[in-house]
Formats: sequence, C-alpha cells, structure tokens
Amino acid sequence: MLTKAQIKLIGSLTQKKQRIKQQCFVVEGVKGIREFLNSDFELDSLYGLSNTFGVPELQFTTVSSAELKKISGLTTPNQALAVFKMPKPLSINEQGLIVALDDVRDPGNLGTIIRLCDWYGVKELVCSHNTVDCFNQKVVQATMGSLTRVNINYVDLEEFLKHTELTTFGTFMDGDNVYTQSLPSSAVIVMGNEANGISDAIAGIVNSRLSIPRFGALQATESLNVAMATSILLSEFKRGDFIEK
Amino acid sequence: MLTKAQIKLIGSLTQKKQRIKQQCFVVEGVKGIREFLNSDFELDSLYGLSNTFGVPELQFTTVSSAELKKISGLTTPNQALAVFKMPKPLSINEQGLIVALDDVRDPGNLGTIIRLCDWYGVKELVCSHNTVDCFNQKVVQATMGSLTRVNINYVDLEEFLKHTELTTFGTFMDGDNVYTQSLPSSAVIVMGNEANGISDAIAGIVNSRLSIPRFGALQATESLNVAMATSILLSEFKRGDFIEK
Repeated sequence: MLTKAQIKLIGSLTQKKQRIKQQCFVVEGVKGIREFLNSDFELDSLYGLSNTFGVPELQFTTVSSAELKKISGLTTPNQALAVFKMPKPLSINEQGLIVALDDVRDPGNLGTIIRLCDWYGVKELVCSHNTVDCFNQKVVQATMGSLTRVNINYVDLEEFLKHTELTTFGTFMDGDNVYTQSLPSSAVIVMGNEANGISDAIAGIVNSRLSIPRFGALQATESLNVAMATSILLSEFKRGDFIEK
Repeated sequence: MLTKAQIKLIGSLTQKKQRIKQQCFVVEGVKGIREFLNSDFELDSLYGLSNTFGVPELQFTTVSSAELKKISGLTTPNQALAVFKMPKPLSINEQGLIVALDDVRDPGNLGTIIRLCDWYGVKELVCSHNTVDCFNQKVVQATMGSLTRVNINYVDLEEFLKHTELTTFGTFMDGDNVYTQSLPSSAVIVMGNEANGISDAIAGIVNSRLSIPRFGALQATESLNVAMATSILLSEFKRGDFIEK
C-alpha cells in the first residue's frame, strides 16, 4: 500500500532539482531494476506487484497495478519501480578513450551514447553542465544497465579539455576524413549539440578536427544524428584493436 | 478554412490501411515539406498558415493555428501540413550496397536507418512485409528529405535474398568480426528485428555472418540497437572507398 508521501516523493523525482535534493532517481521495469541491483548502485526503495527481487522487506512496498500506474512515468508500467540512490561519480580516469558531450540535450541521444560507451568499453563519459541529466527518467529507461558501467561526470568542459593530457578530437562538418586518419587508442572524443554542433569555445580548444564524409546526395541538408556519429567514431577508434599495426 | 471531410481524410492517414487505400501520406513542418516539394514526390494538398511555398492556390488551404492543431500529429504543430501522393517504388537496382530489413518494427529505428542510407549513398532499402511502413507519420518526421532519396520496396525478403546475385550479409551475435573481414562494394546487408534479430528462415539463406564485437563488459545483456548496428556496418562497408587497396 502506497502512502501519499511516497507518491509525492516519487513523482517529484521527474524533476532534476528534486533528484539532486533527494540524491535519488527512478528505474522502472524488472530487467532494468535487476541490473541496478546487481551493480554498485544502492537501493533506496522498491515498489512492485510482488517481491521477486529478494530485497529486504523494509525496502519493499507491495503495490497494486493501479498504484503502480500512479507512480510510473511509462504508458504501460512494468510490474515494478525502484528508487536508487545517486552514486557519487568517481574522479575521471584519463586513460583510454573518453567521450565528452558539449550540450547534448535529447535524453534519447544521451541514452544511446551511454549504451555505445558501454559496448565499446569506454569507461568515462564527460558532460558539459548543459548536457541533459543522465538520471533523467528517459535516459535511465534508454540505457538500463549501461548506466551502471559508465562513469559519468558533469564538468566545466572547457576547463577539462584545456587541462587534459590526452589528445582531444572534435567532429565538424569540415574536419579531416576520419577514415584516413591514424587514431590513437587514448583520446577524448568531443560530440556537439544536436542543433549547433560543437560550440565555438570548445572548437577553439580541441587538438584535432574530424569529419565523417557524406557519401550520399550533396543537396541533403540533414547532418548525421549525434548518436549515429558517436557510433561511427567509436567504431573507428576501436577497430584498430583488431587490425595489424 | 478546413472542411470536416478534409479533417477526417487527413486524420485517417495515420492508419496504414487508409494510406494504402488513399495512396497518400502526411508530411509536417516547413522544412520537410520543402524537401518533398523539391523532389519527385507529387503534392496532393497543402494546409498552412500562409502559402509561402509557391504551390498552386487550388492545392493550398489557409488554416488557422487552431485548425492546424486539429489535423496535426505533432504536440507542437509547425506552420504547415502537406498530403503527398505515395510514389510507386522503382524496381530494385541490384548494384552497390543494399540494406535489407527483416521485420524492423520501431518507426524511429526505420527513420534513422533511412537517414543512414541517405548519408552513405545507399539507394536501395528492401523491407520485409512486416517491417514498419515507411509512410508512417513518425518515420516520415524522423527521415524528412532522406525519404525522397532512398528507393524503398516491401517484398518477400526470403524470395528476394534467394534470387539476388549479390552476396548477402547478415549480422549475428556469433558472426565473424566485421573489422577483420574484406567487404565487397556491392552487397546486401540484412539487419534483424529489434527483439529477435534475423529470423531463422533468413539466417539460413544469407551467404555470410557478421558480428560487431563487444569491447565492454561481458556481463552486459543489451545488444546494440539495430540503427546503431546499421551505422557501424555501413561505415565499415563504405570506408574502403577511402583506403588504398
């Protein structure tokens, strides 16, 4: 049975301000909740039709489907909803590949990029303060377990890029063809905002400008979506692991 | 001023059955409409706050913002909505790269894949009958002009793959590492359903099995999203254009 206070608290976590105040965020769905339970993330409370998760009864509240619907952000709620404590991000380990986001605003794009980092073994994601919050419910639903395996820091991106010892790469419409470059195994890859690309301030700092060439019609006005571009860049940086040098 | 019949007709085009019956589909937004007007697609009728498109007055209906909201499928309608005639797809030109989809169901994924085809100069997209309709409003909004530059056929995919003279590649979790293969410049690349991958029937036909290796944590249960996988595959097949052979 849900209390009004619980409904209010969970509802408030759709707002970034409240997530920061409470230091909590929401995960929905059995599969996703299990992945978070199996990670270093700490459970605050779990609400489900039945406790098939083996969590202590003190942290578990049995709810009806109707109650679940009240607290769910999904059109079709999925058996359980959990509130997890927000972890303190680890300090940035400047080794290997790091992806840096300059004001990526769309939760779906951030979610996809976190999954790509996980797939390509990128442990560090560095985001400008204006990048969408990784504990936004849509991001969490899009990433699921990947969020538990990528260390995400929100920083002053200009300062970070100025001080890192890694080579920094940015993607631009007029950069060097990524397919003909020799790419290092340690680097920072900066991806830009959906509408404006990489900001002028950041563009002035990056060491190297890359571009994914367009093979199709030149009259086309659309650019590659930022998540697509990230997948292609990560593939190019990592494929070298399999190629004789 | 909109008539009730117009409102009803446009509303009905959200259904695939009605689109097929009327042989029409909807495009929303000034930018997208301009791209379709500049293509071989034929306009049926255009509804906008003002006729900034230079289309014949007979085909144009001035509407108020309130009226536009009534016929729009978007949360925030964007100045104009157009009905275009569905083109007859050209017969499949079996040269160069062809992307084939085995029951891709998500409109966002299909939209992204059409944009990727456009970017990588892939002119032919072949879809199984159970793949989501490319004139679905969400697909149209996600692809915009790209839809005018990619020839899309819905076919019996098994029959098509059996009879094509091109080499056919499929992506599987246990295929050969795509980064170490020599890939031809003409081929059919088959991508599978979001939940089930490539169906058994199609798996039995493809000539070659490819895989995008996972670099990250092995305990991860998520696979790459089909649109991400398509971007990486197309990048691998096309990058050879720039590399000395």
